[in-house]
Amino acid sequence: MTDSWLESIKWDEKGLIPAIAQDYKTGRILMVAWMNQEALQLTVTEQRAIYWSRSRQKLWRKGEESGHVQALHEVRLDCDSDVLVLQVEQKGGIACHTGRESCFYSVLRDGQWEPVDPVLKNPDDIYKG
Amino acid sequence: MTDSWLESIKWDEKGLIPAIAQDYKTGRILMVAWMNQEALQLTVTEQRAIYWSRSRQKLWRKGEESGHVQALHEVRLDCDSDVLVLQVEQKGGIACHTGRESCFYSVLRDGQWEPVDPVLKNPDDIYKG
Repeated sequence: MTDSWLESIKWDEKGLIPAIAQDYKTGRILMVAWMNQEALQLTVTEQRAIYWSRSRQKLWRKGEESGHVQALHEVRLDCDSDVLVLQVEQKGGIACHTGRESCFYSVLRDGQWEPVDPVLKNPDDIYKG
Repeated sequence: MTDSWLESIKWDEKGLIPAIAQDYKTGRILMVAWMNQEALQLTVTEQRAIYWSRSRQKLWRKGEESGHVQALHEVRLDCDSDVLVLQVEQKGGIACHTGRESCFYSVLRDGQWEPVDPVLKNPDDIYKG
């Protein structure tokens, strides 16, 4: 049996929906990833962000390797029912695989993308083995 | 001639990239829409959000009908180069066609999507004729 709140989502042709993870306190946009039905269901059940990795074609329990879990505070859906916003608490303060708080660390300045946010932790120390 | 900052973007198979519009002061996520190369170039040149409407297959100068223009403050790109964040000043305080501040007005509560944000203006009064 499928829950009706899952059915009201407009999944794309691959059965996915993009999810924007936002820091629930500061409002900082941390990252964008994808979810299939199972990922969203698990996210709600376990109250932590679980995505669908398109490159690896499997569930991606955010933080399973790095410890940078995203604890769920709220899920919102937009008026077209095709984008989600997750209000999360970012454990460790790092969402990006580069060791930065947010994946959106490049700003357009004078016709160039300039990385403006600090690397908080060396990626080699985040992903061991 | 194409600017190199446009070339470093990973456009999808349709030549588009999703853009998240965020209120530059409050951090509220207002909406998500799409841009092609021309839309992004115009957005930067005119310093206001100009999207590509997938349904109408033409440029969409946000606010051209409603007056709810999004003045541009900053453009950011993520680590995968496939999502943009626009920091904007939302004129009129309404981004959504339903007359709400944000398109993300539905919250998941007890297995249901509940609209929790007020309609600030009747859509009939926003889109006349």
